[in-house]
Amino acid sequence: MTADFQDWARSRQVRIETSLQTWLPAANVAPERLHDAMRYTVLGGGKRVRPLLAFASGELSKADDERVTIVAAAVELIHAYSLVHDDLPCMDDDVLRRGKPTCHVEYDEAIALLAGDSLQSLAFQLLAEHQLADTPQMQLEMIKRLAQAAGSRGMAGGQAVDLASVGKVLSLPELEFMHIHKTGALIRAAVMLGAWCGSSLNEDQLMSLDRFAKCIGLAFQVVDDVLDAEATTATLGKTAGKDAENNKPTYVSILGVSRARELAEELRREAYQSLEVFGAPAGRLRQVTDFIIHREF
Amino acid sequence: MTADFQDWARSRQVRIETSLQTWLPAANVAPERLHDAMRYTVLGGGKRVRPLLAFASGELSKADDERVTIVAAAVELIHAYSLVHDDLPCMDDDVLRRGKPTCHVEYDEAIALLAGDSLQSLAFQLLAEHQLADTPQMQLEMIKRLAQAAGSRGMAGGQAVDLASVGKVLSLPELEFMHIHKTGALIRAAVMLGAWCGSSLNEDQLMSLDRFAKCIGLAFQVVDDVLDAEATTATLGKTAGKDAENNKPTYVSILGVSRARELAEELRREAYQSLEVFGAPAGRLRQVTDFIIHREF
Repeated sequence: MTADFQDWARSRQVRIETSLQTWLPAANVAPERLHDAMRYTVLGGGKRVRPLLAFASGELSKADDERVTIVAAAVELIHAYSLVHDDLPCMDDDVLRRGKPTCHVEYDEAIALLAGDSLQSLAFQLLAEHQLADTPQMQLEMIKRLAQAAGSRGMAGGQAVDLASVGKVLSLPELEFMHIHKTGALIRAAVMLGAWCGSSLNEDQLMSLDRFAKCIGLAFQVVDDVLDAEATTATLGKTAGKDAENNKPTYVSILGVSRARELAEELRREAYQSLEVFGAPAGRLRQVTDFIIHREF
Repeated sequence: MTADFQDWARSRQVRIETSLQTWLPAANVAPERLHDAMRYTVLGGGKRVRPLLAFASGELSKADDERVTIVAAAVELIHAYSLVHDDLPCMDDDVLRRGKPTCHVEYDEAIALLAGDSLQSLAFQLLAEHQLADTPQMQLEMIKRLAQAAGSRGMAGGQAVDLASVGKVLSLPELEFMHIHKTGALIRAAVMLGAWCGSSLNEDQLMSLDRFAKCIGLAFQVVDDVLDAEATTATLGKTAGKDAENNKPTYVSILGVSRARELAEELRREAYQSLEVFGAPAGRLRQVTDFIIHREF
């Protein structure tokens, strides 16, 4: 990672944190415990990978930074809600997330459920109440895209497939189907919504960008699987080795660590290729790509 | 209930059922079990009170029926998601809903959680992907309103207050605060979104309509509490007497049955008063009001 990218990423992470602090209901507004849990879940943690992708993609389409910040916050709220629900006892039953007790451990299950539900609502509220695109019609398109990415044919659907796959042997295409939904859909939405905040890209360019987003979404998950298999709980900030323990099929369980690493590298190259049409202006997206592939947590 | 109203209500209930059948993902689309659970939860049951309110309010603003149908479906999806999550063991832990096993009993907790999550996403998707108002700007306003009504300062927030109130003595204003959020917010949204599908009402009229909606939202809950205290499980289609059993404060526990009935009647009169400015064209809203107050399940 170059110092330039580190500075950029840090400034964007601060910006998204400030924005989320502003838009999340204050912890002294009733119902206080629910709002406290929402803030606990969202603030002060996470790599903010999806926001970084939205910012980088917004730079490419010459989008206004204020717009991209809202879009990035909305995507991050959806991501945060999915983590809270994913950690619940009836799902992955996890006690540690971002180095802290998970929401249902810190509060209780009912509050964690409602916090997740409310974070989802808030994401759509943000997308509806700020001007985010050159036309309100385009903004409706953004909302539609985020709703599809979050729903049963996107992220939530991927989680259902994930749960159903426990203890099963999946083929590589089946595993890919699962992750294209579970992780990929929201990452793709982050990239596209960021770009749609501006309007300098034509249809062909948007298609190239979507191809990029698809590769990077998959690459993210491959790296996640490798990290889960190799890292320690302390480095990850969440329980390591859960996948193997839960008998979940992963890229590592199917391909082995070394082939999984190769696959991540192949996907990185494919992502880079999709960005070739843009030349230098896609530099930031390339940096975020490297950040995703080479991260250690 | 007049025969005219019964015919109207039945035709609207059929229309909303058909619409929901169309917009819910088919049960043979992957992930099948999740989609099956979503359909199980939403279809074939319920009085569809919120859709009826949206239709009646749409008639008042001379709205296109197709538009109102989508809006009504979106509101009903939010309502359905809240029921699925509300019935979960960590919330009300209920096994019976609309005369059938609750979603987590019929499927499992994880699927019920994801089905609720996906129904919420789908509601916002519907509002974003169809033309529902005269301007896309108005449509963004609808999405914002539904998101607010569903979120932590609306329905989900009301549920958090509800959970926190178990075993406590609430004052009447505290109980009212809870229900204005838990039930009232979504009912108000149903009325306003229905009206916003058309554009024949001015600001003053919309304010009167909102006052009406607030009264009817509260009246709905008062009647709900009376029914829960008096009806049998068979009539109700859900477990009766749960509130008392769970030591939850209700209008009946605070006021007694007979005073609670009087309060419902007072709210009905107040609702009627708010409709006076509209004269005859609000006839349908008056009928739905009577239906809500005098229902027996």
